[in-house]
Amino acid sequence: MKLLRYGPKGHEKPGIVDADGVVRDLSGLVDDIAGEVLTDQGLAGIAEADLSSLPAVEVDRYGPCVGGVGKFICIGLNYSDHAEESGLEVPPEPVIFAKATSAICGPNDTVEIPRGSKATDWEVELGVVIGKEAKYVDEAEALEHVAGYCVINDISERDFQNKRAGQWTKGKSADTFGPIGPWLVTRDEVSDPQNLPMYLEVNGERRQDGSTNTMVFGVAHIVSYLSQFMSLQPGDIISTGTPPGVGMGIKPEPVYLKAGDKMELGIEGLGVQRQDVVQC
Amino acid sequence: MKLLRYGPKGHEKPGIVDADGVVRDLSGLVDDIAGEVLTDQGLAGIAEADLSSLPAVEVDRYGPCVGGVGKFICIGLNYSDHAEESGLEVPPEPVIFAKATSAICGPNDTVEIPRGSKATDWEVELGVVIGKEAKYVDEAEALEHVAGYCVINDISERDFQNKRAGQWTKGKSADTFGPIGPWLVTRDEVSDPQNLPMYLEVNGERRQDGSTNTMVFGVAHIVSYLSQFMSLQPGDIISTGTPPGVGMGIKPEPVYLKAGDKMELGIEGLGVQRQDVVQC
Repeated sequence: MKLLRYGPKGHEKPGIVDADGVVRDLSGLVDDIAGEVLTDQGLAGIAEADLSSLPAVEVDRYGPCVGGVGKFICIGLNYSDHAEESGLEVPPEPVIFAKATSAICGPNDTVEIPRGSKATDWEVELGVVIGKEAKYVDEAEALEHVAGYCVINDISERDFQNKRAGQWTKGKSADTFGPIGPWLVTRDEVSDPQNLPMYLEVNGERRQDGSTNTMVFGVAHIVSYLSQFMSLQPGDIISTGTPPGVGMGIKPEPVYLKAGDKMELGIEGLGVQRQDVVQC
Repeated sequence: MKLLRYGPKGHEKPGIVDADGVVRDLSGLVDDIAGEVLTDQGLAGIAEADLSSLPAVEVDRYGPCVGGVGKFICIGLNYSDHAEESGLEVPPEPVIFAKATSAICGPNDTVEIPRGSKATDWEVELGVVIGKEAKYVDEAEALEHVAGYCVINDISERDFQNKRAGQWTKGKSADTFGPIGPWLVTRDEVSDPQNLPMYLEVNGERRQDGSTNTMVFGVAHIVSYLSQFMSLQPGDIISTGTPPGVGMGIKPEPVYLKAGDKMELGIEGLGVQRQDVVQC
């Protein structure tokens, strides 16, 4: 299933894409695409519905495809070639950092360059949405804790991240730094999360062109690993790292976002995001 | 006002301590001590209530004093003498890191040592609860964005934090690593947040004995600074750093928590926490 949230910011309704590509209103069935709705039982309830009986809707705005996100955890340097372009070693185990949940926005919402920023950068990433509480889970069972997948742009201010007295959270958390969606695609429709082509373009120029098959640590390992350090709840989101091609790595000089830029990014089967960039 | 949440985990009710020290049930007045209830307007609504008309309750368990926390942001190395005991320089600007919101627990809940941990440590800290959205706020107005203050034990696994491939979030986020409360004391009752004595004892032995008057960056500066990097919403919590005396800094050898230990910690006017330590 392709689940989504649509409508004005902060007042999104739940929706689903039917077999004909028509968005149907799910609000008669569930309150939100969030929390318990993301469990196997919650998703089964939606899967049983007769979609043709639900109202078809025109979508003016896609919201983030998951609501009420409790944690927004990211994995750093998780593609060996991205680590190389960043001038950093591939870490011996996953690097974990957190993005503020207030950074979350819709997939096509305007992205704001923070005040004082000179190095706002893009990162297309595979997002993993948790569907079942995970605490000390084994890698073999880890994917059972995943509700589904989505596209994430892990927007990053490199100077805030790297030159402002420590800890990456500082450069990862500005408002609009976390476009999520357009859809949460349930895991049954993603046959192999480790073989998904992904790309990102700025002003029509292809900057990132990769695949989740070059991840250092795969999704099952990441979920299991994270669950050793914190418990994960339905609706938590994990952003699993970015392939090469970020602005910071461009030679001879880094290229960063400026007002007026347009980003487009996508992952096969998970949809496309398009963002206009403005100065905050 | 001293606001609190009481009752079974995940089913806490809102409460208030009256002038005689009796806890009164606020659930007829507000749903939770969370979100919009923490705004000046929300708090004014509670302040107008006739507390003697509200049911008196016996508290079996205190929950975290704030519900629905969106972000749990911490400031690192914010007491010059703690930086020294950690063998680290005082940073030129605040170090920001995030704790998982799933780490939040009640002030007297049992604290779990994570599996594989050899270095679980304590940190008494002044907690700041946001009451009004903050984005690019000046230091002069910053305290108007604060609903109130509370005691936090920023429990930390030092090996996970420092020896496991980067970013402190990894050692700060285990379940029960964030006892908060017993009370949210509204800012009108805290005349000077930069002059609050604080302490922490392990098994009756005084380990931390400090005051917020030795903070490197004060509360107003922290709120203003943070708001340059992310927006803050009502119910967000900032833990402002710890004075010296953590287990990691004890000479000649660090001393860490073990199953059976008992912690007690408090900040003047904000109440006392007591935690039993168990192995997870």
